Amino acid sequence: MTNMPIIKDVGITDVTFGQNVTVHRPCNLYGCAIGDNSKIGPFVEIQKTAVIGQNTRVQSHAFICEMVSIGDDCFVGHGVMFVNDTFASGGPAGGDKTKWKPTKIGNRVSIGSNATILPVEICDNVVIGAGAVVTKSIHKPGIYAGNPAKLLRSL
Amino acid sequence: MTNMPIIKDVGITDVTFGQNVTVHRPCNLYGCAIGDNSKIGPFVEIQKTAVIGQNTRVQSHAFICEMVSIGDDCFVGHGVMFVNDTFASGGPAGGDKTKWKPTKIGNRVSIGSNATILPVEICDNVVIGAGAVVTKSIHKPGIYAGNPAKLLRSL
Amino acid sequence: MTNMPIIKDVGITDVTFGQNVTVHRPCNLYGCAIGDNSKIGPFVEIQKTAVIGQNTRVQSHAFICEMVSIGDDCFVGHGVMFVNDTFASGGPAGGDKTKWKPTKIGNRVSIGSNATILPVEICDNVVIGAGAVVTKSIHKPGIYAGNPAKLLRSL
Repeated sequence: MTNMPIIKDVGITDVTFGQNVTVHRPCNLYGCAIGDNSKIGPFVEIQKTAVIGQNTRVQSHAFICEMVSIGDDCFVGHGVMFVNDTFASGGPAGGDKTKWKPTKIGNRVSIGSNATILPVEICDNVVIGAGAVVTKSIHKPGIYAGNPAKLLRSL
Repeated sequence: MTNMPIIKDVGITDVTFGQNVTVHRPCNLYGCAIGDNSKIGPFVEIQKTAVIGQNTRVQSHAFICEMVSIGDDCFVGHGVMFVNDTFASGGPAGGDKTKWKPTKIGNRVSIGSNATILPVEICDNVVIGAGAVVTKSIHKPGIYAGNPAKLLRSL
Repeated sequence: MTNMPIIKDVGITDVTFGQNVTVHRPCNLYGCAIGDNSKIGPFVEIQKTAVIGQNTRVQSHAFICEMVSIGDDCFVGHGVMFVNDTFASGGPAGGDKTKWKPTKIGNRVSIGSNATILPVEICDNVVIGAGAVVTKSIHKPGIYAGNPAKLLRSL
């Protein structure tokens, strides 16, 4: 015997949009804020409290979670995943958001496709290579790549 | 001159649901089983014969293939991809499923976002770091990360 | 005060299909060409000028960008992301496509799930491991894996 699941459909709910924002559907955007002239690709999810600046492009298949803020003139590549729960106590924090950690991305930060961003701070003028896994905060402009991501060269 | 393609639309077909399961659409679920109180995010595909336990969360953009079983109280992060064909003979097995290999995930296993899971066994009480590539079976509880994934510390 | 975004819906536009192509929706295919007997999974985006050969399978969640050509009898795994802009001058090239670089994939190339492919050439008869990041051209048949991808063994 099987049961009926509870079905929820993606959509655009309680989003604060700046001027001239473009959004490709299907996407799941709720409770977030997206600045002027930014673009959101298809198959993207952006959760509540996330903030996206101006002139920033979020490419297809990206996932931006709660407690992430991204600055102006940024590029979030295809399939980039942000993380707010580091499983610090050996598993998901679940509903206990006091265990979640924020991420703050500066301006003119370009994140290559399929990169993964743990809860960190990244300063202005940084390039993250495609496929990189960023596990530590970045305070110096430059190009970072690898798993875990390391400085390749300064900018 | 161009031809018309054969179009197929995603959906929910022949799925055995436990009680109180939540599913976000669009998703592509067919021929699988999903246990009580589990949650499936949007943009997810779960193929036939896959089994998901109880109280397990499958996050957005995940892909769970044939021959994968996942236990109870697990977390499958955003963009996690499972693999059943290792291209062992230098390319895809194609229709020859005797060349595919199963994956068995225990209980209380948390898999970080963008991780990739080759056909392996993972025991109970394991954390897989975000962006990790798991190429070998894991028989000891702990935190594993990197490409290929290695033990970071025991739990 | 919030504004109305510009909404665009994914679809299939200006695509040249060979015979007997199968496409799973939702997907976003535009201005590309897809050869005979190829299959495109759900949640896939393929951009203009991309060319896919015959008998090639593009799995769910893959992204194939402008300036990518893929041969016959290839396998593009789930969540594989191609890249045409290496941020060579420290950030996205934006509209300046003279800074983009092409990717050319031969025949019988199998790319594992969650792999990332920078702008490179890959010769015939190559296997790319799941989760690999391919940063350099590959001119010799074999199995390549890791971040960055290196030769594991010849074929």
